[in-house]
Amino acid sequence: MAQYLGYQCSICKKEFLPVSVIYTCPKCGGNLDVILDFTHIKQKYQVEDITSRSDFSLWRYLPLLPVADPGGEATPLHFAGWTPLYSPSGLMKSLGLKQFWLKDEGKNPTASFKDRASAIVVGRAREIKADIIVTASTGNAGAALAGMSAAIGQKAVIFAPKTAPQAKIAQLLIYGAQVILVDGNYDSAFDLTIEAANEFGWYCRNTGYNPFTAEGKKTAALEIWEQICLHLEDSTRPLCVFVSVGDGNIISGIHKGFKDLLALGWLKQMPRIFGIQSDKSAAVANAFFAHSETIIPISATTIADSISVDLPRDGVRAVRAAKETGGEYITVTDEEIIAGIGELGKFGIFAEPAGSTGFIGLKKALISGQVQHDDPVVVINTGNGLKDVRAAMMAVQAAPIIEPTMKALKKHLKI
Amino acid sequence: MAQYLGYQCSICKKEFLPVSVIYTCPKCGGNLDVILDFTHIKQKYQVEDITSRSDFSLWRYLPLLPVADPGGEATPLHFAGWTPLYSPSGLMKSLGLKQFWLKDEGKNPTASFKDRASAIVVGRAREIKADIIVTASTGNAGAALAGMSAAIGQKAVIFAPKTAPQAKIAQLLIYGAQVILVDGNYDSAFDLTIEAANEFGWYCRNTGYNPFTAEGKKTAALEIWEQICLHLEDSTRPLCVFVSVGDGNIISGIHKGFKDLLALGWLKQMPRIFGIQSDKSAAVANAFFAHSETIIPISATTIADSISVDLPRDGVRAVRAAKETGGEYITVTDEEIIAGIGELGKFGIFAEPAGSTGFIGLKKALISGQVQHDDPVVVINTGNGLKDVRAAMMAVQAAPIIEPTMKALKKHLKI
Repeated sequence: MAQYLGYQCSICKKEFLPVSVIYTCPKCGGNLDVILDFTHIKQKYQVEDITSRSDFSLWRYLPLLPVADPGGEATPLHFAGWTPLYSPSGLMKSLGLKQFWLKDEGKNPTASFKDRASAIVVGRAREIKADIIVTASTGNAGAALAGMSAAIGQKAVIFAPKTAPQAKIAQLLIYGAQVILVDGNYDSAFDLTIEAANEFGWYCRNTGYNPFTAEGKKTAALEIWEQICLHLEDSTRPLCVFVSVGDGNIISGIHKGFKDLLALGWLKQMPRIFGIQSDKSAAVANAFFAHSETIIPISATTIADSISVDLPRDGVRAVRAAKETGGEYITVTDEEIIAGIGELGKFGIFAEPAGSTGFIGLKKALISGQVQHDDPVVVINTGNGLKDVRAAMMAVQAAPIIEPTMKALKKHLKI
Repeated sequence: MAQYLGYQCSICKKEFLPVSVIYTCPKCGGNLDVILDFTHIKQKYQVEDITSRSDFSLWRYLPLLPVADPGGEATPLHFAGWTPLYSPSGLMKSLGLKQFWLKDEGKNPTASFKDRASAIVVGRAREIKADIIVTASTGNAGAALAGMSAAIGQKAVIFAPKTAPQAKIAQLLIYGAQVILVDGNYDSAFDLTIEAANEFGWYCRNTGYNPFTAEGKKTAALEIWEQICLHLEDSTRPLCVFVSVGDGNIISGIHKGFKDLLALGWLKQMPRIFGIQSDKSAAVANAFFAHSETIIPISATTIADSISVDLPRDGVRAVRAAKETGGEYITVTDEEIIAGIGELGKFGIFAEPAGSTGFIGLKKALISGQVQHDDPVVVINTGNGLKDVRAAMMAVQAAPIIEPTMKALKKHLKI
């Protein structure tokens, strides 16, 4: 694991020693960034020490992670990350891009990006000998925590809104987590989780609130760096990274990963980071458009349940991820999100609505000229479409039913 | 690709040149085995030439596959195979095994084992310039064909029984395949597919019927060989492989893979292959128990839809896979299959019913003494549990719903 010096509040900039805090800034309540000891890391490692590792999971980046390896077992926890990059030529052609990748986070053990955060938090919990981990979740983060916990025998409690898709709730239960559905939205589950953690002494994984979630999510940036950035030839065109935004923690984690690499001198050029939100859950985008860091809660109603958030818990850092990198925020409609699922499917990629969201954002950015056709681009598909079949069904027409005879078939095919 | 000499009928043993047949034996209708040119392969390759390849997908075994690489693109097709092996210590302890692995085929691009067959058949279709590929499927094989086809822009038509789980049908449609549901079972879809392929000149992928499906499925054996067999220390105890059986093509393909390796002299000891069926879909097991190769159709009603088959289309080879390797057939109940989903879930592994089936078979074999606690064992999870959430919900109790308040929480927790 990496030596880390402590935490810095993303709002008031106050610094804290590793042992002195667990969650947010005791002074102002801001989210904390983990500060790595870059001098020590640079002395100990070179780029090749990382890229030559034979561990093809997020654990290959242990030298840059503030947690220890959670043991040498082969469990699903140990296969989180190192997700594939697709470049289907047909899709590239239809987008008019010369360098395009789709990073498929649906290939994670519980089929979403959130495994990255949960794997690191579970590792942290083992270090601090936490008996129970608790989280609020619209589904993916909970499934990730439940799955990563189950993998190494850690107890987990999940609070989810009762409206979460059935497949996601089934996953939570199958992994043996204690699941409590709340008659409210994600935000009410979030607040209840913190109260319960404080009162019962549980370790709270809540996204953004726990500084280790961003450390887990930054591993996607480390992979993008190793899989793409190290191989880019034209240094005048930074990589454009498209990712959907709900809570704001994924985009913040990705930004943190690139910042760590930049501080180490291992990344030549900061990628431009584009945050994409549904226009029915656009609290972060609203702040970005208003040139503000004040996140005003909205009443989120998007079909993309993974990014349906009234009050983003990592909104400030999420705004900065785009602002500080020459990126943008873009909003898309739910109709576009649904259509995007079908468009990606035709190239063999089955995305959940939040996954399609980033892809649609790219299409809009190409039309508006925010991204040029010569720019290298990566879109992150945040989760597997099997997670939300109801949404997928909206993207397609129901299949016809016929009698199993050639006569019926020919009639159907009009032959 | 491997040089291959032709085909041999698994029933009448007649041999055919590569160009002379497409599907089954023209003489007796038996399923065909692809015959590789082992002399040529041995001259050209050594074990290290395979194991040192940097392609971590089933395409690393191209030297042993009778198809060419379907192009240097990075698409989901190119990420089929090379699935992870889990060895959670808690699960090993509960089974009382010292050497145990679960091979997770749910990590394939469309989340099931069937991607292996479809990737190879799509590669073959490209070689023979087939315009349309068609298949019958209970869901997984169709999704695999649809997904692998979409990845490289190949047209696909899928016939599925109208009773297939909604998630599986959604997947077919999302991938842009032409889907036709038949008002009948898998077997009626199977027969209609063959008729349609013959009449319309489509290339038929039907499991077992097309000799290349087993060639794709054998790649799981090649991986088990590379990931496990090459590292086994005690040569007196062969590896025991547990896999669920429906059509019989997966177990036949795995057997074929090990036979190819044995013929090359690369595998020291043939593993024992155990076929597990639901007692509500046990046509192959019935034949095995009767010491017969006559497969008598039954009326299958198991909840494990991937292995619910009235007339197994690869039954003879499936019987032999166990018989010729010192393996066994074992039947399990649907109740056991459902319970097994929950048992695996508690170790972070979310299996579909057909995946749990193999695991339950192992537990029964340990009780009966067919497998010893010192034997090395691998169980194949054939698909991701997200494929059949309805079944998963049967394995768990519904989660409670509470008001989002500490008072309600404490009442629920009885604190």
